[in-house]
This record gives sequence, C-alpha cells and structure tokens, in this order.
Amino acid sequence: MTVHYLDSVTGERAPLDTPKWRGASGAPLLLTDLPGISRDDIDESARGLWRYHRAFPVAVDRPISLGEGCTPMVDREGTLYKLEWFSPTGSFKDRGASVMLSMLREQGVTRVLEDSSGNGGAAIAAYGAAGGMQVEVFAPASTSPAKLVQARAYGAQIHLVEGPREESQYAAIAAAESGGGFYASHAWQPFFLHGTKTLAYEIWEDLGFEAPDAVVVPVGAGTSLLGLAIGFHELLASGAISKLPRLYAAQPLHCSPVDAALRGDSERPVLPTIAEGTAIRTPARVEQIRAALAETRGDSIAVSEDEIVDALGVLARTGLFAEPTSAVAAAGLAKLRAAGVIGPSERVVALLTGSGLKASGGIAEALGL
Amino acid sequence: MTVHYLDSVTGERAPLDTPKWRGASGAPLLLTDLPGISRDDIDESARGLWRYHRAFPVAVDRPISLGEGCTPMVDREGTLYKLEWFSPTGSFKDRGASVMLSMLREQGVTRVLEDSSGNGGAAIAAYGAAGGMQVEVFAPASTSPAKLVQARAYGAQIHLVEGPREESQYAAIAAAESGGGFYASHAWQPFFLHGTKTLAYEIWEDLGFEAPDAVVVPVGAGTSLLGLAIGFHELLASGAISKLPRLYAAQPLHCSPVDAALRGDSERPVLPTIAEGTAIRTPARVEQIRAALAETRGDSIAVSEDEIVDALGVLARTGLFAEPTSAVAAAGLAKLRAAGVIGPSERVVALLTGSGLKASGGIAEALGL
Repeated sequence: MTVHYLDSVTGERAPLDTPKWRGASGAPLLLTDLPGISRDDIDESARGLWRYHRAFPVAVDRPISLGEGCTPMVDREGTLYKLEWFSPTGSFKDRGASVMLSMLREQGVTRVLEDSSGNGGAAIAAYGAAGGMQVEVFAPASTSPAKLVQARAYGAQIHLVEGPREESQYAAIAAAESGGGFYASHAWQPFFLHGTKTLAYEIWEDLGFEAPDAVVVPVGAGTSLLGLAIGFHELLASGAISKLPRLYAAQPLHCSPVDAALRGDSERPVLPTIAEGTAIRTPARVEQIRAALAETRGDSIAVSEDEIVDALGVLARTGLFAEPTSAVAAAGLAKLRAAGVIGPSERVVALLTGSGLKASGGIAEALGL
Repeated sequence: MTVHYLDSVTGERAPLDTPKWRGASGAPLLLTDLPGISRDDIDESARGLWRYHRAFPVAVDRPISLGEGCTPMVDREGTLYKLEWFSPTGSFKDRGASVMLSMLREQGVTRVLEDSSGNGGAAIAAYGAAGGMQVEVFAPASTSPAKLVQARAYGAQIHLVEGPREESQYAAIAAAESGGGFYASHAWQPFFLHGTKTLAYEIWEDLGFEAPDAVVVPVGAGTSLLGLAIGFHELLASGAISKLPRLYAAQPLHCSPVDAALRGDSERPVLPTIAEGTAIRTPARVEQIRAALAETRGDSIAVSEDEIVDALGVLARTGLFAEPTSAVAAAGLAKLRAAGVIGPSERVVALLTGSGLKASGGIAEALGL
C-alpha cells in the first residue's frame, strides 16, 4: 500500500517523496490511511516507540532516538495515568519529534524551523541536535528566559518575535519560505502525528493488547489526541482491537476553542491559563479534532483554573509531579466521572503530558508552596 | 538464606525485623550477602525495577511504585549513557526510594525523616506521598526555594536548618531520636542501596545479559556506585556474569573526598561546585566506596569545573539535557579515556543521574545561554 499526503480539506493526494507541511490548498495535511499493525508486527528488539516502526509511513534506516516511548502507566483509584515525562526532554512531544525528524532526514531535510515557547521547541531542538540537523525556534518575546534554556542548551538558535503567539508562527513560515529551512511544525507537519500515534499502540500493549474504554487528554494543538485517534483507527483496521476507545479532549475554560466549537459557543472569551501547553487560540487542526471526537463518540470537557490547580495538587500528593497542562486531563476526567459520562467500572487512561519540573515556578505560585 | 543487617565496621549482625539506619557501633549498615538472581528469576510481568524483586532482601506485598526503572540507554560514539532522568521525580534516587520505603512500610514505618536539599528529598517525598507515609525533609536554610518546590508539592513538610549541610542531618537525626519518625536517609539506610543495585541488574539486561567492561558514575554519597557494586557482586555470585565491571567514581575536584583519600591528598580544599549532587564533604560510606573500587579494580577520577561544564555542553548538543552532576561522569570518562585507563574498544556505561530541568538556572549561567 502506497501512502500519500492527504489535504484535509480538498482530499487531494501527493506523493511522500518531498517534505511538505501543508497541502496545496493551504490546509493541514494528513496521510492516507495506513493498514495498522498487529501484535506480531511489533519489533521486540526495540525498547521504545521504534518497536512499532512497521506502523510508520516512511521506512527509516537510522532513527533519531533518545530513548522515547515505553513510558509507565500507574493506577490511582482505578484511573490509569500514562506518565509522559519519562522522556528525553520531559514531554510527550518527543514521540512526534523523534518520528518526524527521522522521516524528514530521510527526505533530505537538514535545517528545520519551529515555533514554540515550550515543549515543542525543546523536543525539536533535542532531536535536531541528536540528528545533526540545524534547528531554529521562533518564540514570543514575552516568553520567560527560563522556558527557553533547554532548547538553547541543545544548540537551537532562538528568535524572539514581538507580538502575540501567532507572530512567531508567521515569522517561522516566512523564514522557511525565504529558504531558511523546512517548517517542521509539530502542529502542522503530518509525520508528527505518526509519532504521537505510538501512544495508542503503547496503551494497547500496556493493557495486554486491549483498548481501554476511554482516554482523556489535554488539548492545545491536539497532537496527542490526533495521534491517539490515528493509532486506534489503525488498530481497529488491522483487527487488533474490536472497538475504538472514546477520546475526550480536556481544555482549560480560559482557552477552550474545541469545547467552545462543540458547544456552539462562539463568544467564549480567551484568558490566560496556568495550563500553558493548551493555550492555543486557534488550533490548525480543529476540524480534525472534532472529527476524531465524533468518530470515537467522545467529547470535549472544559475545566476552570481552580479545577486545574486542585487536580495538580491531588496528583502531586500521590507522587505525580506533572506540569499544569497535564492536570487539565485529570480535572477533566474528574468532571466526566462526576457527570456519569465515564462510568465507575470503565477502564480509563488519562495522559499526563509533561514534567512538573518544566513549570516549578508556576506550580509553586498556584499551590502556595 | 536469612539476610541480616551487617555493621560495616564491627561486622555485627542483627535481624531484619525492625527498621534500622545504622549499626550498634554507629557505623553505616550493609546487609549480609544475598545470593543474587539469574535470568530466569526476572519477573517478566513487571515493567520497571520490580522485575528484579527476587533479588531484594525483604519480600514486599505491595511495592510503592511510580514507574521507576527501565530507563533507556543511548550510544554516543561508543559510550553507553544510561539516562536516569526517565524516572518519577527526575533522578536515579527514585530507585532507592521505591525499594527502601516499600520495605520500611513492610516493617511498620509510617513517618520518615530525610535530610537533603535536592534529589534525595524529592524522591523520598514522592514515594512517601505515594505510599501514604508522612515525610519531613530537613534542608539547609541557604537552599534556593526553587529546589524545594517539588518536595513541597508532594506534601512533604520542609524544615530549613541554619548552618552548613551537616546541621540538616543532625536536625533530622535529633528529630528521629525524639520520636518524630524513622530516619530514612538515602545515605545511611541500607535498603536504599538494594534499590540502586537494580542499576546493575538493568545494565546487565540492557546488554543482553552481559556485564560491561566499566561503569563511570558521579559520586557524592555514593549510593549509585555502591548499588552497582552490590548488584554486580550478586550477579557474579549467581553465576550470571563471569567478571565484575570496573567501577569508576567521578567527582568534581572542588569536592572530591573519595579521590583525595585514594590519592592520599589530605589537604585538598573543598570549594563550591556546579555539580551540587556530589557536594558531600564527608560521605558516610567512604570506606565502602573505597572497598568497591578496590574489589572491582576501578578507580576514582576528579574533574575541574571547566571540564564539567564542557561535558555538560557536549551532552546537550547531542540531545542529552542532564543535570551538571551527571556531567561529572561524562567528564570523568573523557579523562579516563584520554589517559588510556579505559580502552577504545571497551564497553563502557556512564550514568547520567538526573534531569537538566532540575538545574536550568545553573545550566543557563554555566553555558552562557
């Protein structure tokens, strides 16, 4: 089966032989359906996510790997938390960065551009360094210097861009279009989702090769949610599972464009949130997020800042020091359970996306430590 | 075979039925030799270090686990780096904390006291929280508040103690002696080393059930080095390996009591070092560290602050964002290779003990970011 790029709006296809980050129409790209893999296709010789390489759209001779994947799952009163800070740079974005940059390197890319003020930039910078690629990261001038130390340490060149978050994206795209490199955006480039889809394969393997009933994830750009949707879709296609888990997109009420769209609430204001990883005002892939929630019969859930902080504290006091963005999933799950949307006997996984060490200052302030 | 506490100076034995942190003589405790396990004794159903539970001195019905162990190893120009920041609190100390607190809980301990300004305190606080135990951490009043956020978030009570680092230890011991709880010191309590010994079992399994030629580790209190020594000793005893790897203790020249003792340099000054995790002026177990180096025919190596910072930068630019303490191992290894002590074709593992996210400020300053 030959895989193609697929324009998510026009349905136009294009061959995978050149690097692309958006379709001819300007819409986000997906890939045409892959057949998925089953248990026998797992490469047992690989410890991390490269054990699922037979599910990948592009064959990679030399993966750029820093030990990503194979994260643990712990049980807290019946909820299974998938701990994504057990990763090279401290967040789930390493899954996408490892797979995307490995495939882009196969396509001949040597210089990459990304816009991010946080986990995405750190992940691209680390894998670029590991893969011998030059990395430039565009971030808002308002980003605290502490948040950029990690990406700088990996050797990425940082460009600070005045104005709102969007201006950093425009600057990265402009630099790419003037020959500065390939726009290897975690939010746009479709290979990234084929890295995050390993979350689905891994949860399936963690659960003894079964799907859970539901998965709750924090949603900003939606790369974990969309990866899960692709991965479980492939597992259903291969016959490895018999039903899709319901996917739930948890967002802070202060920045909840997906939830507002699902509720038809076009007037919902956008305010600052402690869950910085979800503070994406206009996710590029919002239509695909809606489609993923519909296909899996999931939903969105919005949580208040107080609910996020409460969940953060509860997690920490059971030994889980997650970044506030992760606590959005825990808070969302609590609300979904309270509303009876998720039943007491259902097997539920909540994704804790990144390390609390990335946000110590914010956590100290929020919890009054 | 019944295991006993073993006073490391007098050789006196005591039964394991009560919690102890030092011998009747006041000397550090070890345990009497365990037989070690072989490949068939690994519990394949467990993902992390509890897969080696048959090597533990005390049977534990309900381990306190946060996903510790099963950390990746990556190859950088022939050196195998074991990445210990893939762990619950971001450092290798989680291995010791998981095993020690699980066993202490079996012995009936419910309240624990620790002195630490960093990784040790965070690890004990996290596992205490996960295990339903009360935790108090004693730290120097000079500790930056940022370093204590993590332990506080887990719910540990923090006591700031005026004076040098030793005063925090004395305060913790005094509190324990006046009935405040058990002194669950990572530096003293011997079960801790039976958690860090899983490093040896894991490296052995990572390498296809073979021992490497050498392992280089940063040494402060020496808990990783001593754990490795115990683990490889057990593997030799069980017949699982045929020779011990040489163990090398890397220390910053600015605080290198082990290296100074080995070189007979009683006048070596102690100065501040960027490698905070190794800044232990008088390690409780210095004699056992010397014995471990002698038994394995290893050595110590001291590195300058510049060498540490150089190694930190080199690691980061290959995608490995480690805490400066970890860079001591990389710097030490470079020096051992340059001196021909470690040969070019030898299989060497260097332990990167913790996450750079724990020391972003210091890293930014050191690397001029």
